[in-house]
Amino acid sequence: MREDSPPRREAGGHPAHFDPELAARELVRGAKPGDVHVRVARPGLREFRRVAPRRLVATRRAMQPRGRVGRVLGALKQALIGEPLATERLVHERLTKVKALAVLSSDALSSSAYATEEILRVLVLAGAAALSLTLPIAFAIALLLVIVATSYRQTIKAYPQGGGSYIVTKDNLGTWPSLVAGSALLIDYVLTVAVSISAGVAAITSALPELGPYAVELAVAFIVLITLVNLRGVRESGTIFALPTYLFIGMAFLMVGLGLARLATEGPADLSAAAGHLPVQEPLTLFLVLRAFASGNAALTGTEAISDGVPAFQPPEWKNARITLTWMAGILGVLFLGISVLALQFAVLPSEQETVVSQLGRLAFGGDSVPYYVFQAATMLILVLAANTSFSDFPRLSYFLARDHFLPYQFQFRGDRLAFSTGILALGLLSGLLVVAFRADTHALIPLYAVGVFVSFTLSQASMVVRWWRRREPGWQHGLPINAVGAVTTGLVAIIIAATKFEHGAWMVIVLLPILVLMLRGINAYYVGVADQLILEPTSKPRLPSPPIVVVPVQGLDRAVARTLAFARSLSERVVAVHVTDDAAAGEALRARWESWSGDVPLVILESPYRALVPPLLAYLDALQQQDPQAPITVVLSEVVPRHFWEYLLQGQVALRLKAALFFRPNTVVVDMPYHLGE
Amino acid sequence: MREDSPPRREAGGHPAHFDPELAARELVRGAKPGDVHVRVARPGLREFRRVAPRRLVATRRAMQPRGRVGRVLGALKQALIGEPLATERLVHERLTKVKALAVLSSDALSSSAYATEEILRVLVLAGAAALSLTLPIAFAIALLLVIVATSYRQTIKAYPQGGGSYIVTKDNLGTWPSLVAGSALLIDYVLTVAVSISAGVAAITSALPELGPYAVELAVAFIVLITLVNLRGVRESGTIFALPTYLFIGMAFLMVGLGLARLATEGPADLSAAAGHLPVQEPLTLFLVLRAFASGNAALTGTEAISDGVPAFQPPEWKNARITLTWMAGILGVLFLGISVLALQFAVLPSEQETVVSQLGRLAFGGDSVPYYVFQAATMLILVLAANTSFSDFPRLSYFLARDHFLPYQFQFRGDRLAFSTGILALGLLSGLLVVAFRADTHALIPLYAVGVFVSFTLSQASMVVRWWRRREPGWQHGLPINAVGAVTTGLVAIIIAATKFEHGAWMVIVLLPILVLMLRGINAYYVGVADQLILEPTSKPRLPSPPIVVVPVQGLDRAVARTLAFARSLSERVVAVHVTDDAAAGEALRARWESWSGDVPLVILESPYRALVPPLLAYLDALQQQDPQAPITVVLSEVVPRHFWEYLLQGQVALRLKAALFFRPNTVVVDMPYHLGE
Repeated sequence: MREDSPPRREAGGHPAHFDPELAARELVRGAKPGDVHVRVARPGLREFRRVAPRRLVATRRAMQPRGRVGRVLGALKQALIGEPLATERLVHERLTKVKALAVLSSDALSSSAYATEEILRVLVLAGAAALSLTLPIAFAIALLLVIVATSYRQTIKAYPQGGGSYIVTKDNLGTWPSLVAGSALLIDYVLTVAVSISAGVAAITSALPELGPYAVELAVAFIVLITLVNLRGVRESGTIFALPTYLFIGMAFLMVGLGLARLATEGPADLSAAAGHLPVQEPLTLFLVLRAFASGNAALTGTEAISDGVPAFQPPEWKNARITLTWMAGILGVLFLGISVLALQFAVLPSEQETVVSQLGRLAFGGDSVPYYVFQAATMLILVLAANTSFSDFPRLSYFLARDHFLPYQFQFRGDRLAFSTGILALGLLSGLLVVAFRADTHALIPLYAVGVFVSFTLSQASMVVRWWRRREPGWQHGLPINAVGAVTTGLVAIIIAATKFEHGAWMVIVLLPILVLMLRGINAYYVGVADQLILEPTSKPRLPSPPIVVVPVQGLDRAVARTLAFARSLSERVVAVHVTDDAAAGEALRARWESWSGDVPLVILESPYRALVPPLLAYLDALQQQDPQAPITVVLSEVVPRHFWEYLLQGQVALRLKAALFFRPNTVVVDMPYHLGE
Repeated sequence: MREDSPPRREAGGHPAHFDPELAARELVRGAKPGDVHVRVARPGLREFRRVAPRRLVATRRAMQPRGRVGRVLGALKQALIGEPLATERLVHERLTKVKALAVLSSDALSSSAYATEEILRVLVLAGAAALSLTLPIAFAIALLLVIVATSYRQTIKAYPQGGGSYIVTKDNLGTWPSLVAGSALLIDYVLTVAVSISAGVAAITSALPELGPYAVELAVAFIVLITLVNLRGVRESGTIFALPTYLFIGMAFLMVGLGLARLATEGPADLSAAAGHLPVQEPLTLFLVLRAFASGNAALTGTEAISDGVPAFQPPEWKNARITLTWMAGILGVLFLGISVLALQFAVLPSEQETVVSQLGRLAFGGDSVPYYVFQAATMLILVLAANTSFSDFPRLSYFLARDHFLPYQFQFRGDRLAFSTGILALGLLSGLLVVAFRADTHALIPLYAVGVFVSFTLSQASMVVRWWRRREPGWQHGLPINAVGAVTTGLVAIIIAATKFEHGAWMVIVLLPILVLMLRGINAYYVGVADQLILEPTSKPRLPSPPIVVVPVQGLDRAVARTLAFARSLSERVVAVHVTDDAAAGEALRARWESWSGDVPLVILESPYRALVPPLLAYLDALQQQDPQAPITVVLSEVVPRHFWEYLLQGQVALRLKAALFFRPNTVVVDMPYHLGE
């Protein structure tokens, strides 16, 4: 306490002043600055604005971190994620269709970078001849894309406020199905990050094979970077996203165009020559074909993004969103089919060292040409953007789930930069673990992927069917069949994916999904139970059933203890100091000092023949409690706080151990009186 | 609270009874068992015995661990280290000379298992011819042993209460030298464990080479085992120690005898034939010879153990101790010289796979014979016992240092089994780390060893010189020169060891020693400073300078908050509830509920535009504090405690974060009111 700020109280008497509203500054507004009384009388003037009676607004000044450690950590955090932003700066950018396509399609469009390859990888198991099935499968997937997009056009109109699968399902099918949809999406967002980053790293290592051994490190570095960027709360700024997305679209179309031109002039490569030496590892069964189809459906992931993001469009939102969705589906369909045709005609085979799309790029642009490297860079960037999309979607879905009490409420809070920090960190951590566990291998992750997406597609479309039927709004005769076809088709595909990829990894998702659903339900049950127990009748007057029994454990008699005893005496008439010791002589010596000293709190010596401190004290509290079962047992702890952190090790953790033990004792209040050394 | 234990208080009024002495049971001794009032009126009867007014002794029953986790941990601890023992069961066994030799000599005698080899390892660097210097060096070390033993005979008589180097030095040379001696010993006790265990493992892997790759794991397992055994508090029971020690002495003498017999019949082996192919890596300089001498001095470590342990002897303690010391020095000298002579005559060379003593054992007993394996087992056992000796010495020295406030006071406490648990755990941890860092390699550890021992020898003997000179007690003309020769000789050897082994590892000890001394001094300065600050004038009446200002942070209005407010109101007239929020509308909704409710505590809404909770609250406390700088700011926290540990994750750690932040705020009292769910 500084000498130059004297306490404002009457001589010898009680303090005159207690103003919880910090309103006193009004009274002295005319005083000269520098006057001591002005400083004392204007508490909190710079830290708070008083906007109404008993209502204060903290200023930026109130946010200063304290202590050396706090300041260092604060500076570090600010360097990493930037200055805190006030809530009022939360703005929602409205996107033109051109920007919206860039922001919301990166996940879907980027799938074209790996979807064809995943089909080839399955078919090639049955030998070169089986590869000719690539095109029929690709067309089937393209047809599915049309069905899903048409279905979602209905959702967009029905949910202009944003029709994520969780919300739509909750609205129409109820809690359990919505939790299935939510869990499926949570899983798939994590997988989107892992798959997209792994594929993005594969685009780099295809162009620069010498980076191959560092794939996992690169992938983790990307995830850390994206996590930090999202904690900084970079808005879904269309401008930042537009460049890589349109660069990728442009380069990919160029590649397909150049490839087709070369095909027209040179004719197709001889597939059986290129692939003839491949061993037949599995017979060409319907199951294998379905598995290839299931793997290719990774192309459809991300299609739902536009219907989630309708409110971000400029008005008329739903119309613009619909147009954008159609465009996106068209671009994705053309790219995916084009790449599939080229891969087959040029007899490009999957390899461990280079992606199929990179091989096509070399063929179209020339092996070491600048356009090839630009194309690879664009592919990498759009894949990173796709991962980044999950960093908006996952935290937003976690927010909805937390708001509905299905996830810990920390997921509701916005961090310093207005982003949902908990969700962002959780996603970064989970996807990072996944990338490390799967060694950043896209092909190993793909079997886990898309199950969740198709489960949520199915539930979302089925919800729309129920909605049409219940409401029978204009156009329902047209909309219901569309969504019904969508629901049945995506449902079938979900089953195909789960069945054909089951043993290759989909089982993990199928096992995890119900566990996650039950976890969400369990969390909800806990929160509901707590709220029930804590409900307060509006008439119940707060009153202590019985004045507290106050116990002060003392290790000796010093200033800190004396101050603690004074505080304890102010709490209650029923105060006792307790000294637990294994040394009877030392105990009696303390009693002698105690009695020669002028305190008025009785001292009880508890001898502990087993030398333990906590158990005898707890047993003693129990014995006191039996004398008055209603009285809160109040334990006042005197704790010496050293000035330096390392000194804390020398101070013994008696108070800490007591606090930990007393925390779980019912009807117990712990009062902690730190005595700051050098105070 | 159980329904069947009604509160003992007058109808409607204040509780009648508060008996901190738990004396009430006297009043109802005649009541029938089972009567509710008896149960209530006999609080603590089974948990405490009342031995005097305000003096209670906890029974074994008061020691029961609480809660599921506590019970599981308690059972686990008991399984590992056994039932707690009462302090009164602390007994000091008195040892006959035969048992004392076993208990106190294992460290010294076991050195013969590796000391010769360490000489050979250095000499062999200069080629086969240099090995002939083994014997002169061994005789020099044996002479040194005689000098040290004679010196310590003086100490034993002067310090019949136990003359450890730290105590003797502190007594005669003062604090700084005693800290040097203490630090040197602490280091060397850790090294004794590491070296002895590594050598013990080498005895095993010499006999069973297939265990070679697991040397580090074996060594760590031994250290864990010894740590647990010592935490169990096995007394230095002569009987347990006698078997392996005398087995080793017997087998070692037998080996030397058989070896000498074979030598007499067969004549010496041809050293130049065996070692002729060895490359000369270093020239044979005086420095190398001194280094070999320095390495061999590992044989003398442990010689001081008997003078530390004089009080453990049967009376007349000092006489018995002296006789035992002479015996020990004699046995060690004969074994060491015998092994050195045999190694040289049989041309046994150090090898990476097998120890020299094991090779001699094979020569004497026959390669795969039962006696050879018994000998190896005995060697391993006495080396483990030597390590075990440090587990008595290190905790005892730590206790002395902690008692004198040079080490954290936790080192003073006896654990459940009356052992100095902190010292035992510290030694186990440090030696375990050392063994892992040095891959359980005796030869890598030896250069670090013995510096500390000889520093403490020197200081101890120098202290005796000062003592003789100051007191001039009868016999000083005889004793002073003996100790002076001892001090000078051991001092010279300390310098030789430090210089010759400096670059091979001794530098680490030489760097560590002053750091450790300064650390002990720093710890002492801290404790002295704290005691000064906390000193209490016997007349100062405990009184609060100003009644507390009470602040109750609230997140909402529920039962837990209502109870907390009631408690807060009982503390002070100056109470305010504070709601920090980033949502002005939610804040006003809370105020509306607050005002329709019947509480009498004002609510202040603190809007936090940056969404942070802690900084605005701290700034608010500062503003309140300025209104009355003397008043303790008392923050009453309402905290919901779930029934299961995992549920705690769902509860949010608001209270925990506040407690952490408030702990470092001066003049602040934190009151923690847990609300136990299902209470």
